[in-house]
Amino acid sequence: MSGYSHSPPGYGYGYGYGSASPPANPHKNQAGRGGYPAPAPSYGSLFAALVPSVFPPGTDPEIIACFQLADQDSSGFIDDKEMQRALSSYNQRFSLRTVHLLMYLFTRTNTRKIGPKEFAALFYSLKSWRGAFERFDRDRSGFIDANELRDALLSLGFAVSPVVLELLVYKFGKTGGKKRAIEYDKFIECCLTVKGLTEKFKEKDKAYTGVGTFTYEEFMLTVLPFLIA
Amino acid sequence: MSGYSHSPPGYGYGYGYGSASPPANPHKNQAGRGGYPAPAPSYGSLFAALVPSVFPPGTDPEIIACFQLADQDSSGFIDDKEMQRALSSYNQRFSLRTVHLLMYLFTRTNTRKIGPKEFAALFYSLKSWRGAFERFDRDRSGFIDANELRDALLSLGFAVSPVVLELLVYKFGKTGGKKRAIEYDKFIECCLTVKGLTEKFKEKDKAYTGVGTFTYEEFMLTVLPFLIA
Repeated sequence: MSGYSHSPPGYGYGYGYGSASPPANPHKNQAGRGGYPAPAPSYGSLFAALVPSVFPPGTDPEIIACFQLADQDSSGFIDDKEMQRALSSYNQRFSLRTVHLLMYLFTRTNTRKIGPKEFAALFYSLKSWRGAFERFDRDRSGFIDANELRDALLSLGFAVSPVVLELLVYKFGKTGGKKRAIEYDKFIECCLTVKGLTEKFKEKDKAYTGVGTFTYEEFMLTVLPFLIA
Repeated sequence: MSGYSHSPPGYGYGYGYGSASPPANPHKNQAGRGGYPAPAPSYGSLFAALVPSVFPPGTDPEIIACFQLADQDSSGFIDDKEMQRALSSYNQRFSLRTVHLLMYLFTRTNTRKIGPKEFAALFYSLKSWRGAFERFDRDRSGFIDANELRDALLSLGFAVSPVVLELLVYKFGKTGGKKRAIEYDKFIECCLTVKGLTEKFKEKDKAYTGVGTFTYEEFMLTVLPFLIA
């Protein structure tokens, strides 16, 4: 399992997210596969230039090849449309909105460019999320329903309450017949949103009390990047 | 000036929004024109049925006629597409996304239906925002730039910092030539977002300290409704 997830995941509505006790080392997954970059959460960096990076040692050659093919001018960065094309050749088709959200969450900048290190982390996370989606889409319909979404999020380390779950399905689901169901692209957008907001909240709740305090400025700068571009 | 705005608007970055001192009576604008409905901010009501309402005494007959024309089955409610059509006949053309955000913020439910009282409040607010847009679009280009957006938001009672302003222009602006500019539909979406998020924050900062405390559940339920539907 990749990403910044709790192991084992807790399920406390009273607390609200993940495990009630902090992981022994929240960065333990970051050294190798499935690592999620954690740049300093400086709000001033929202429009800062992305720092050049290299692939971490041991990166899957498939990922390196995928990046290099997309980076046609060998600048060391790929942009949003290049990333959309690169991922689609690996059966990961996303709207530009989802690509923008991916880029924002893995670079923590609004530059809409991504370098090798962040791209590798993103690629591993997508692989893990694709796995979760396929595992919980038991009837292989290409859609998951509310209960399956709850279980999939839980397997990724995010415990959401029934009200939040209902809102997620409402926001990310399509109405098919009587009930709403979520397809793969929207599932990824949903995972990114829950993961991103939860991490932003945790920055304000370092002691895992379940309560976070924001100034108005912090609140606005936390929320606005998740809105439609 | 309509809506839940401070008078006179303050401009304190340190504090972050509106006037540094609470208005004597924050509900003073709600009795008559330009009033903004303030249903109880209960998170349980997100999916509750919308309560039937009637037009407040003294409502402009034009607004009543507009609503009744749209409410073809005389149910007392109009839905998202009916509202989109009704507003467009008054030169207020919006994407369905903006219509959904309008409906959410003026009903505080996700029912995507709106009744007479909420429709009247919404109509008055739009009139006021249209006025602000036209006042600040000095060259009548149909677009406003970052400085004009800052002044327009300020005239509506919302003081945003330079970093928040930059993010708003980035999110809601289109790139035209070298600089980003915001057209009317996106300006309304921007106003709704700033207004909605600011009001949500104020619910957590009733003493106007500039700091708000959220549980994880409250944080998620505050932010998610503003995401794309």
